[in-house]
Amino acid sequence: MRTLITNIAELVTNDQLVTNDEQAQDAVGQRLAGDSALGILCDAAVLLDGDRIAWVGEAASAPTDADEIVDAAGQAVIPGFVDSHTHLVFGGDRSAEFAARMSGQPYSAGGIQSTVEATRAASDDELRTRLASFVAELHAQGTTTFEVKTGYGLSVADEERLARLAGEVTDEVTFLGAHVVPPEFDNGMGSDGDSDDYVTLVCGAMLDACAPHARWIDVFCERGAFSTEQSRRVLEAGAERGLGVRVHGNQLGPGDGVQLAVELGAASVDHCTYLSDDDVSALAASDTVCTLLPGVEFSTKQPYPDAKRLVDAGATVALASDCNPGSSFTSSMALCIAIAVRDMGLTPAEALWASTAGGAAALRRDDVGRIVPGARADLVLLRAPSHVHLAYRPGVPLIERVWVAGRAI
Amino acid sequence: MRTLITNIAELVTNDQLVTNDEQAQDAVGQRLAGDSALGILCDAAVLLDGDRIAWVGEAASAPTDADEIVDAAGQAVIPGFVDSHTHLVFGGDRSAEFAARMSGQPYSAGGIQSTVEATRAASDDELRTRLASFVAELHAQGTTTFEVKTGYGLSVADEERLARLAGEVTDEVTFLGAHVVPPEFDNGMGSDGDSDDYVTLVCGAMLDACAPHARWIDVFCERGAFSTEQSRRVLEAGAERGLGVRVHGNQLGPGDGVQLAVELGAASVDHCTYLSDDDVSALAASDTVCTLLPGVEFSTKQPYPDAKRLVDAGATVALASDCNPGSSFTSSMALCIAIAVRDMGLTPAEALWASTAGGAAALRRDDVGRIVPGARADLVLLRAPSHVHLAYRPGVPLIERVWVAGRAI
Ligand SMILES: [Zn+2]
Ligand SMILES: [Zn+2]
Repeated sequence: MRTLITNIAELVTNDQLVTNDEQAQDAVGQRLAGDSALGILCDAAVLLDGDRIAWVGEAASAPTDADEIVDAAGQAVIPGFVDSHTHLVFGGDRSAEFAARMSGQPYSAGGIQSTVEATRAASDDELRTRLASFVAELHAQGTTTFEVKTGYGLSVADEERLARLAGEVTDEVTFLGAHVVPPEFDNGMGSDGDSDDYVTLVCGAMLDACAPHARWIDVFCERGAFSTEQSRRVLEAGAERGLGVRVHGNQLGPGDGVQLAVELGAASVDHCTYLSDDDVSALAASDTVCTLLPGVEFSTKQPYPDAKRLVDAGATVALASDCNPGSSFTSSMALCIAIAVRDMGLTPAEALWASTAGGAAALRRDDVGRIVPGARADLVLLRAPSHVHLAYRPGVPLIERVWVAGRAI
Repeated sequence: MRTLITNIAELVTNDQLVTNDEQAQDAVGQRLAGDSALGILCDAAVLLDGDRIAWVGEAASAPTDADEIVDAAGQAVIPGFVDSHTHLVFGGDRSAEFAARMSGQPYSAGGIQSTVEATRAASDDELRTRLASFVAELHAQGTTTFEVKTGYGLSVADEERLARLAGEVTDEVTFLGAHVVPPEFDNGMGSDGDSDDYVTLVCGAMLDACAPHARWIDVFCERGAFSTEQSRRVLEAGAERGLGVRVHGNQLGPGDGVQLAVELGAASVDHCTYLSDDDVSALAASDTVCTLLPGVEFSTKQPYPDAKRLVDAGATVALASDCNPGSSFTSSMALCIAIAVRDMGLTPAEALWASTAGGAAALRRDDVGRIVPGARADLVLLRAPSHVHLAYRPGVPLIERVWVAGRAI
C-alpha cells in the first residue's frame, strides 16, 4: 500500500511538514521556524510505502503512482510523538490519593506501594486489557513509539510478568525492579540493610527473569528510594546482561543520578528537576539525553525544571509523559509540549523536537522521530495549520489522523 | 425519543452520576465527594425524553419504557460544561504572536487590533464556517452551552454582523463593542478624548444595531482599555436596553471592575486575577458570579488568581475558557479544571461544579448545568470512572459521548 500525503495549501505560511531533518528545511520553513532543527517544508508531500517512508519533498515533484492520496489541506503534518518514559503496566486506581494531594497533601513516593498491591493481585488478562486501552489512548493522541517500564511487581515472578506483558505491545521494555523497596524487604529500621538485600535480588534472579524481555535497565536513584551505590550495582548488572542504561534521577532534590548516568553512558536520565551547574555541564558534554517530564511537576505541584538552561548549555532534551497512576497520569504529549513552553522555557519548536526526535534520541533510535526516507512511517496530521498550535491551544484535541508504521489508526 | 442512561457498575465506588443537585446526593456519593455540591449518585440512571431530562434516580427503579438504553458501564456521567465566556467570532491567525510571546515578549492587549483587521476583512460565510468548526470542537469536548462575545468588529456594521452570526449558534450573545478602542478613534494623544467619542458610538448607534441580537452587554474595564466611568456609561446604556450586565475586570492589575460589576448587579465579572479584600467581600455579598479564566493565565504566563480565597469567602466561582486567538486559545473546559485544581486552589469537585453549575449561574440559567428533571438534556459520558480524572489526567481526551439537548453528538 502506497499512500501519498500532500500538503498544498492556499496560504503557504499555514502549511507545514515538520521533518526534523535540519538539512531538508526549505526557505519558507526557515522563515517560519528560524534556526530550529525542525526541518520544515512547505507545499510538501510525503510518500508512505508499507511501513516505511519512501519519499519526502516538494509536492510538485511527488511520485504519481500512489494507491491513495491524502490531502492535508493546509493542516500541519509532524512526526509521531516518541514517549520514552511510561509506566503503563499496573492495576488499581489512585484517583482518591490524587484528590487528597490536590487538597494539600504533599506527594510521597510511598503511594507506589498501593499500585504494587493492586498490580500483583491483577491477572495477566486484566493487565493486558488495561494496557491495550492505554495503547489505543496513546495512538489516538499521536504517540507512535512508547517505552514501558516494569516496577509495580517487585517480585521475580511479577516483574517477569510485567516485562513480558509490556513486550507484547512495545519493543522498548525497561526493567525497573529497582523502583521502590517492596514491603516484604522493609525491616522498618531505616537502614540500608533491607534494601541491599532487595538490590541483590534485583541484580540476580529478578534480572535473570526479566532481561530476556527487556531492552533497558532503570533505577530510581533518589533519597528514599535507592542510593547511588545501590543504583550503580543495579545498572552495572543490567549492562553486563546487555541492557541499555536509563536512570530516574534528581527528581525530588539534588542528587547523584545525573552524574552516575553520564558516567555509565546512559541513554537517558529522566526527571532532572534539580540540577547543579556540574550536572548541566556533564549532560552537555555527554551523549546522555536529559528527559524532562512536565506532567510530573504539573500533577505533584513541584517546581518545573529549567529546560532552557539545558538547551542553552548544549544538552539534548527530550520530553516524555511518565504516564503512571501516582505522579503523572497524563498520556498527552501535546500537553507536555504546552507545559514545557509555558513553564520550562522551551520555544514551541524546541518542545516539538524534544517530544519527537528528542524522544527517539533518548531511546537511541534513528528509525523514528523523523519524517525522512527509510524511517518508519509514523506521522500525525494535525487539526491545525501549524505545529505551534500544540502549545497555543493547550488541552484541545488537535490530532486529526495518525499513521503507525504506515497504518492509519 | 426516550434514552435511558444506566450506570450500574461492579465497583460502586467507580460509578458516579454527577447531578449538581445537592439534595440528591446519596450515601455513597457523600462518602466519595464529602460536602461538595455535586450531588453524586451511584448505581443511578437518567432518562432523557426529547430535549429534556425526564427522570433521575436509582437504576433499580428506572422507567422501563425507554426506546434506547445506554450502559455507562461504570464510567462517570456529568452535566455538560457551560462555558460562559468565549470570543469565537473572529478572522485571522495569531500563532506567530503566541510563539513570540512564549519566547519572552509580554502579553499586550494591542494584539487585538490584528484580529479586528482580519475579522473586518472576512466575509460572513468565512466567519460562519469558522464558528461552525468551533462549535463542533466545543461539543466534542463536552461543552453543551456557550456564550459568544462580539468585539472584533468595532464598527456599527461589523459589530452588528458579529452579534448576528453569534446568534446563529447560541442564545448567549454578548455585545462587547467596548473591547478596545479601534485605531480610527485613536488620536494618539493618550487622552481619554478619543475613547470617549468611541464610547458614545458604542452606547448609541452600535448598541442600537446589536441589542436585538444580544442578551448581554460587556466592557473591558481595565487600564489601557476603558476607564471606570466609560465602563459605567456602556453598561448602563446596555441595561437600559434590557441587556444583562457582564464585566471584564481586574485582569492585568487591581481596578474598579469588580466593584462596578457588583454595584450594577452584573451576572458575572470575569478574570478577577487581581482582587483586594474589599473586592472579595463585595463578591461574596452579591449575586455576581466571579468567573475565572485559567487558560488566560496559562497562555499569557500571568500569575493565577486565588480561587480558594473566593470560595472560602462565600463567592460563587465559575470557570470558563475565554477562548480567543490572543490571550487564551484553548476551548478545553477539562484543561481549565485541571489548571484550576493545580494552580488556583480548587478541589476537583469545586472545579467541576464551577465549570457546569457555576457557568450556568454566570449566565443566570437554571435549565442547564444540572442533571435534574426538567433541565435540558445536556450530558457527558466520560471515558473515566470518576470526574476526578478530569484533573487527574490533564490533556487526555476523556470525553466519550456527549448529548446536547437530548441529541447524541
Ligand atoms: Zn518514571
Ligand atoms: Zn474575554
